[in-house]
Amino acid sequence: MKKVINEVDHVVDESLDGLAAAFAPWVRRIEGTHVLARAVAKPSGRVGLVSGGGSGHEPAHGGYVGEGMLDAAVAGEVFTSPTPDQILEGIRAADHGAGVLCVVKNYTGDVMNFDIAAELAKEEGIEVRQVVVNDDVAVEDSLYTSGRRGIAGTVFVHKIAGAAAERGDDLATVAAVAERVIANVRSMGLALAPCTVPARGEPTFTLGEDEIEVGIGIHGEPGVRREPLRRADDLTDELLDRVTSDLGLESGASIAVMVNSMGATPLLELGIVARRVYQVAAERGWHIRTAWVGEYMTSLEMAGYSITVLRLDDELAALLEAPASTAAVRVAR
Amino acid sequence: MKKVINEVDHVVDESLDGLAAAFAPWVRRIEGTHVLARAVAKPSGRVGLVSGGGSGHEPAHGGYVGEGMLDAAVAGEVFTSPTPDQILEGIRAADHGAGVLCVVKNYTGDVMNFDIAAELAKEEGIEVRQVVVNDDVAVEDSLYTSGRRGIAGTVFVHKIAGAAAERGDDLATVAAVAERVIANVRSMGLALAPCTVPARGEPTFTLGEDEIEVGIGIHGEPGVRREPLRRADDLTDELLDRVTSDLGLESGASIAVMVNSMGATPLLELGIVARRVYQVAAERGWHIRTAWVGEYMTSLEMAGYSITVLRLDDELAALLEAPASTAAVRVAR
Repeated sequence: MKKVINEVDHVVDESLDGLAAAFAPWVRRIEGTHVLARAVAKPSGRVGLVSGGGSGHEPAHGGYVGEGMLDAAVAGEVFTSPTPDQILEGIRAADHGAGVLCVVKNYTGDVMNFDIAAELAKEEGIEVRQVVVNDDVAVEDSLYTSGRRGIAGTVFVHKIAGAAAERGDDLATVAAVAERVIANVRSMGLALAPCTVPARGEPTFTLGEDEIEVGIGIHGEPGVRREPLRRADDLTDELLDRVTSDLGLESGASIAVMVNSMGATPLLELGIVARRVYQVAAERGWHIRTAWVGEYMTSLEMAGYSITVLRLDDELAALLEAPASTAAVRVAR
Repeated sequence: MKKVINEVDHVVDESLDGLAAAFAPWVRRIEGTHVLARAVAKPSGRVGLVSGGGSGHEPAHGGYVGEGMLDAAVAGEVFTSPTPDQILEGIRAADHGAGVLCVVKNYTGDVMNFDIAAELAKEEGIEVRQVVVNDDVAVEDSLYTSGRRGIAGTVFVHKIAGAAAERGDDLATVAAVAERVIANVRSMGLALAPCTVPARGEPTFTLGEDEIEVGIGIHGEPGVRREPLRRADDLTDELLDRVTSDLGLESGASIAVMVNSMGATPLLELGIVARRVYQVAAERGWHIRTAWVGEYMTSLEMAGYSITVLRLDDELAALLEAPASTAAVRVAR
């Protein structure tokens, strides 16, 4: 295993320290925890937003803490759900008297631990609601999930629900906006190379020189199908077709797109994917209002990419384009 | 070779199309060229800023086109200097009547082609000046360079000279500011794994399971020394020591730091590097005003990282923190 680390057991703790220092304009680490909270808390009376999950998905989730997005992000060990007590710390940090919405990706451990934390927070008098993102169309159930997995589409939930919270919507409204994003967002990914979890020390799977895994998740798991590498446009067509068919995307629809690197696939290649997405959208009559191309929800140093499509209505579009200031996403006023 | 591409010969052209579409709020591609220019040109009477070089360093250089940074970026083929006619197109696009500054990294081909383009532009009546960035302390000469190579520190030149141009400084002043950055910036990098140039089809070098290359450039070339992988803190200490010794960095200095992934090294690991940089800075009495941690000047999917340190004075700090709006760097007003 070749990684820039010190001890395997300290990877997450040390990385959080370094990122908290570098991201100091946006976040602070709550001492003794794995929680990154906003450097400057939002005004009281506004709904708080918490997300989190295993580490290894950077810039998720600490990179999305700041004005217009999350109030706190809770990091588990690599590809491991954060514990309820850590999540509770995040909820406390995000509570400004108007309740807290937890944005959870659909993995059994995450859902369970966020549930427990929410119960504990309620005992402290904090109103908590939870939404579960399940945007991955590749599988109906997986090793880690009952139902579809939550992957890169989660970042659009952070952005849009975050903007709703920032403008002063109440908890029920912010939750409803988040659910509307979840109902309209779909993703699917593929891998050209696996990743190596530090504590395990070897790749999560092996692939031949010309093989890829289609339908991968974000925890190094293999996809639903192994097949030969094809031209970029063929791969992109398939992912886009699966995602938009599932969404029932109609001609004339307004959409946001994310072309997300799983880690090692460079922006040069993502550009080739983005080009094809714009071509197909033009053919099908989809209007791309916003395209995010880069690293948003990674799987350590896995090579590959995912495509996310979000169907927009006017309000979702306005919230997606509302100001935000975080380490990883910034939208100007 | 496993890459998300169609034909090897179309990689750069197709990627530029896709990135131009996705980055449309900031850039437009000048038709028939490899030039990305600002979507909205700056007011006439302001100095224009052009940079560029081979592709494969994304988000350099198109990601830095926009308000407060570059006016145009010129892309060559992968790891290949752009041709003089392409650079000339960039200079024309950046010219708003007050002259154009070209920010060139010190590679023989780049310097020569930018020189030729400058001569051609002068014949058209455009005033052009050139600064050459040579921040890499690893080597004095290399396969591609006479003198030190230009690497990640170049992005600080874009940001600071771009801010000077934006506020209305004249060409001589913008050039002088750029030279002050160059005089005060140093970088050095290392690789854990090589990259593969599409047209070549195989890795630029091979490394044993426990080996790294120290002192690499940004074109897949091996470093100056091959050695066993060590702890992240040891590696970071060495890079930081080389960089700051060369700079003669004094206790009490104010600095900007960049921890730059060469491509495949994830943010999780960069966080561990950043932590150590902050520790050493605290021990040595250096005040880190700004830390950029992420992918700024990559070498395709190479695994590894570089550290850049820029000594700041009050003016350089203010220009670094001035507003900017590009695909890859955004600083709020």
